[in-house]
Amino acid sequence: MSMFTEEYDVIVVGGGHAGCEAAAAAANLGSKTLLVTMNLQTIGQMSCNPAMGGIAKGQIVREIDALGGYSGIVSDRSAIQFKMLNKSKGPAMWSPRTQNDRMRFAEEWRLSLERTQHLDFYQEMVSDLIVSEDRVVGVRTSLGLEIRGRSVVLTNGTFLNGLIHIGEKQFGGGRAGERAARGITEQLAEMGFDTGRMKTGTPPRVDGRSLDFSKMIPQPGDAEPGRFSYLDTPKLTRQRECHMTYTSPEVHELLMEGFDRSPMFNGRIQSIGPRYCPSIEDKIHRFKDKDRHQLFVEPEGWDTVEVYVNGFSTSLPEDVQFRALRSVAGFENVKFFRPGYAIEYDYFPPTQLRHTLETKLIENLYFAGQINGTTGYEEAASQGLMAGINAHLKLNEKEPFILRRDEAYIGVLIDDLITKGTEEPYRMFTSRAEYRTLLRQDNADLRLTEKSFRMGLASEERMRAVEQKKAQSQDLVGFFKKTSFVPEEINPILETVGSKNVDQGDKLFKVFSRPQVQMEHMMQLESVSEYVRENQLGQEVLEQAEIEVKYSGYIEKEKNNADKLQRLENVKIPEGFDYSQVKSLSYEAREKLGRIRPATLSQASRVSGVSPSDISVLMVFLNR
Amino acid sequence: MSMFTEEYDVIVVGGGHAGCEAAAAAANLGSKTLLVTMNLQTIGQMSCNPAMGGIAKGQIVREIDALGGYSGIVSDRSAIQFKMLNKSKGPAMWSPRTQNDRMRFAEEWRLSLERTQHLDFYQEMVSDLIVSEDRVVGVRTSLGLEIRGRSVVLTNGTFLNGLIHIGEKQFGGGRAGERAARGITEQLAEMGFDTGRMKTGTPPRVDGRSLDFSKMIPQPGDAEPGRFSYLDTPKLTRQRECHMTYTSPEVHELLMEGFDRSPMFNGRIQSIGPRYCPSIEDKIHRFKDKDRHQLFVEPEGWDTVEVYVNGFSTSLPEDVQFRALRSVAGFENVKFFRPGYAIEYDYFPPTQLRHTLETKLIENLYFAGQINGTTGYEEAASQGLMAGINAHLKLNEKEPFILRRDEAYIGVLIDDLITKGTEEPYRMFTSRAEYRTLLRQDNADLRLTEKSFRMGLASEERMRAVEQKKAQSQDLVGFFKKTSFVPEEINPILETVGSKNVDQGDKLFKVFSRPQVQMEHMMQLESVSEYVRENQLGQEVLEQAEIEVKYSGYIEKEKNNADKLQRLENVKIPEGFDYSQVKSLSYEAREKLGRIRPATLSQASRVSGVSPSDISVLMVFLNR
Ligand SMILES: Cc1cc2nc3c(=O)[nH]c(=O)nc-3n(C[C@H](O)[C@H](O)[C@H](O)COP(=O)(O)OP(=O)(O)OC[C@H]3O[C@@H](n4cnc5c(N)ncnc54)[C@H](O)[C@@H]3O)c2cc1C
Ligand SMILES: Cc1cc2nc3c(=O)[nH]c(=O)nc-3n(C[C@H](O)[C@H](O)[C@H](O)COP(=O)(O)OP(=O)(O)OC[C@H]3O[C@@H](n4cnc5c(N)ncnc54)[C@H](O)[C@@H]3O)c2cc1C
Repeated sequence: MSMFTEEYDVIVVGGGHAGCEAAAAAANLGSKTLLVTMNLQTIGQMSCNPAMGGIAKGQIVREIDALGGYSGIVSDRSAIQFKMLNKSKGPAMWSPRTQNDRMRFAEEWRLSLERTQHLDFYQEMVSDLIVSEDRVVGVRTSLGLEIRGRSVVLTNGTFLNGLIHIGEKQFGGGRAGERAARGITEQLAEMGFDTGRMKTGTPPRVDGRSLDFSKMIPQPGDAEPGRFSYLDTPKLTRQRECHMTYTSPEVHELLMEGFDRSPMFNGRIQSIGPRYCPSIEDKIHRFKDKDRHQLFVEPEGWDTVEVYVNGFSTSLPEDVQFRALRSVAGFENVKFFRPGYAIEYDYFPPTQLRHTLETKLIENLYFAGQINGTTGYEEAASQGLMAGINAHLKLNEKEPFILRRDEAYIGVLIDDLITKGTEEPYRMFTSRAEYRTLLRQDNADLRLTEKSFRMGLASEERMRAVEQKKAQSQDLVGFFKKTSFVPEEINPILETVGSKNVDQGDKLFKVFSRPQVQMEHMMQLESVSEYVRENQLGQEVLEQAEIEVKYSGYIEKEKNNADKLQRLENVKIPEGFDYSQVKSLSYEAREKLGRIRPATLSQASRVSGVSPSDISVLMVFLNR
Repeated sequence: MSMFTEEYDVIVVGGGHAGCEAAAAAANLGSKTLLVTMNLQTIGQMSCNPAMGGIAKGQIVREIDALGGYSGIVSDRSAIQFKMLNKSKGPAMWSPRTQNDRMRFAEEWRLSLERTQHLDFYQEMVSDLIVSEDRVVGVRTSLGLEIRGRSVVLTNGTFLNGLIHIGEKQFGGGRAGERAARGITEQLAEMGFDTGRMKTGTPPRVDGRSLDFSKMIPQPGDAEPGRFSYLDTPKLTRQRECHMTYTSPEVHELLMEGFDRSPMFNGRIQSIGPRYCPSIEDKIHRFKDKDRHQLFVEPEGWDTVEVYVNGFSTSLPEDVQFRALRSVAGFENVKFFRPGYAIEYDYFPPTQLRHTLETKLIENLYFAGQINGTTGYEEAASQGLMAGINAHLKLNEKEPFILRRDEAYIGVLIDDLITKGTEEPYRMFTSRAEYRTLLRQDNADLRLTEKSFRMGLASEERMRAVEQKKAQSQDLVGFFKKTSFVPEEINPILETVGSKNVDQGDKLFKVFSRPQVQMEHMMQLESVSEYVRENQLGQEVLEQAEIEVKYSGYIEKEKNNADKLQRLENVKIPEGFDYSQVKSLSYEAREKLGRIRPATLSQASRVSGVSPSDISVLMVFLNR
């Protein structure tokens, strides 16, 4: 009798963000699931910055949560700071972000998974897949154990043939202090998979006790901290501050002194890194005219003195890192815990996948996370969730679960990967989503929870919460539409916000639609505050109703724009078109379009890195 | 400018139990200290069982605490269960032990060190030492960084050329999932150091959800849980249970089926393992007549479902481990998190050290922990503490800090190592201490805190606490000596404990000396309880006074015995003496003495593994 006699439904390889979500989803749907990972003590490890969410990524975390994934809950429970980014812009741009306690985050993941039924754990390195007639039937571990599974989700992150670079030194590893995984890439390549190399980097970790925070700009969390989860995770009652500081020409000078020893510039690293998470050497190389770059100084947890230097990702030699960082304001006496480094790893161009994330070549084999060429925890987690769901559904002969581009950022992400592929580490941006006004952080539950509930993943509790939110916010909007005000009560309020007085009564909806008037002002009206109190409406409901009242026109308009864009997509681009004359194109779009030279606007829109607004710009330019 | 321009006073290599205590001690004494370790996220990692203390080891933790080390505090803060072992025996045998939350334990260590002044951290592997004219002047890291230090404490644990064995498979590693360290052994060997190989093993970790605890015997903690620290660490208000179960002839059968594939028995592992922490295969091999062995099922923390199977350490093939464990009561459906394994590693025979733990060959180089051939967290931690202290003292031209065998278990440990060396992993036992009646867990503070305080390590707070305890317990003993009772009040109490009535009044001391009478009974006397209340005496004081009253004669006698033993040590043993006829010798003593054939009792007493009671037995046999 071997250790694994029974067959699992789903075997998930890897316990990073993708693997954790995949395992949780498959198990919660009822599949007998096994999570095999190299080290059970590094489950849910944040390889890089101690933060979740941010622009477009925060929306993804909300979507994961709405679908019944764990990332939002884990982030909330381990948060040390919460911020809603872009609050001054339209609600499509609002993006929640948490700073997290790195240890707590991993611990919450581990404990959440342990509490999940149908989910087993095993610590070992998977060395290859067991495949029979183009169908995966299990995995083999480095000890030679065979574990049978009806489907397998691979989520190896940066570990496949990982190679770490610091200056001129390089050594194998999946992450600092952890070993690389070998075997899987080679086996898959032999089976006919395309493979490639990418790279990413991380900044030094330093001793907070050696920094002078008085020379930096404090970055506190929101006064009224929100949450990722639509469930009742605890609200933050205290928060830790981050700080901001800047590099300087002197710092850049010092960094440049090391360029000849940089693996990025001397050709030792050939693979492409994330354009939007560039290393500091990349930044000063590409933007020669900028004489400073922001650095965010982020605590690694509630109590630890370890600090993450966001914005200073680098693979320069450690003495160069040190010398340069020492010249940054506040870092004069900095002590390093460890230097930054870059890592190269194998990925599989994602055009080899179906929309379910199943591979086209091998049945029941799914890929999720960094190995699909993406970068970022949120991108990884959402793929894991979708792979876990679809692995389960297929085994049970159910319809696949695919989100459309107008339903979720997750839909955009997977559609981009599957149809366009990616030549550089792919991260999400709001600009990648044509329907971004629809894909907001406030309505992820309204968009997605019911779908997930019907499938059996999102809990009854979640479903009830959405229904209530929906009903309550609609009722509240209805209340604004049918309730009238008299000028005497509204005018004093309008005056305080600098909006012009009204002469006669009207419906509340009308005055609430004015840009300056916000929910807090409406709440000053006896009738409104009484309604809210009587119906015990929560913050989420007020926010939802406010967005519906204030942005409904805007959202409607954007939807039309998107439709128009869709229709006009098949427009020809003249041969030899000079993109450099179109100044309002993004730098990336100009470069790529000039190189790839698409024949139609439709083709252009599918070039990776070209955004919907680039297409709009081109449309204008082509006189349409 | 390199990253490390300044010279450290003390560089500690390794962040295990030894390294953590060494770093804390040196820094707290005022030395500019650096802790370099391979992974800052594994500081204070418990490699094996999630528990601290136990017989003789609990005394060591108390001693470390009394001296101002951190192990006691860290253990208290992360304890999930507390037990005073051997409470039914004399107070010399009382041994505190905690079960710990593995994650919390590591976190508490890390945070305690972060709060320590003069202590810096750096994450990297040290690959060699920088030595100049037989004096260490720094270390070199695997990236090639040079860090200068006036002294270096090596605490590499099981990492030096670590080789992990599971059945017929073997691979490099310092601990499961962590890489081995190379370079240091080779360099030291070249410099003339003797090196050797030892091995140790660990049991499988399993999923608590797969066990049937109703078939096992619950092992709760003490109703009144104590603490390791003499300071005011929080008392446990809730505890987690352990469980006990047994192997069976069937389990042994199943294990034996794998013996031909066992690295222990097929000769692949040559090095010697810890005799007193034998693997399960060792146990059934050596004790063929025993048809069952105890297994303790220990939770790995407050919330995790991971469980440690104490007593089932093994390097048999994982399928054999699995099959056998499945036949243990309660383990019928066991699921493995990971199999057990054995590890072989380099050590340096400790006879190459001075009593300060400085090496004889290289000045200012200290060795502490597992690399000195010991096994166990407590043994490692105490050596680290002493090495850290002595490194600091030497740099400051102060007298070395050496504890005598009659002052502390730590004194016994180091004296044993330095003078006898060890051929097998050395762990502490009460039997190794000739003066064990003096070296109790209750009086470690009375024995040691003042010494440490004078040296500048133990805090003022600690010193005041000891002084108070001393004064109060002496006063209380004085009170018992001078206060009289009348028969009417004492006789009802004596009756309840079955001790014979008194006819006339006498001093309290007299009746308290009776074996059946304990402090709780004395407290039933109005005069005693009033005294205790008025003077606000704590539990520690009551215990201390009780031991002084009840065991003073015994302690005195033991001291005389020890002295006699000392005097009679130079007794000749006839050539060809047949040890096998001396049945009351321990198994180990018979075996070793028969092999080594010492010429005198004194020599015999220095053979590793021969205990004072073995010597007493021999003395009787030799008609003295
Ligand atoms: C140095 C570094 C810098 C980064 N910088 C950034 C950045 O600047 N911005 C950004 O957005 N993202 C960055 N990332 C990426 C981010 O960490 C990943 O996007 C995210 O962690 C990917 O999640 P994942 O689940 O795909 O893989 P990972 O989080 O890497 O998890 C992979 C898991 O698989 C396990 N595993 C791998 N192979 C095997 C095997 N054969 N058998 C068993 N288990 C296996 C590993 O132990 C691990 O648990 C960086 C990552 C690294 C390492
Ligand atoms: C598999 C296993 C089973 C065990 N079983 C038992 C048992 O049954 N009973 C028992 O009492 N004890 C057992 N032990 C031993 C117990 O874990 C050790 O006694 C104790 O941890 C030793 O503490 P230490 O500080 O000496 O070393 P460790 O705890 O091993 O710590 C060594 C530290 O040094 C670091 N390090 C090593 N080399 C370098 C380098 N070159 N550069 C930088 N850092 C370095 C490591 O990362 C680690 O942090 C076992 C250990 C293992 C690994």
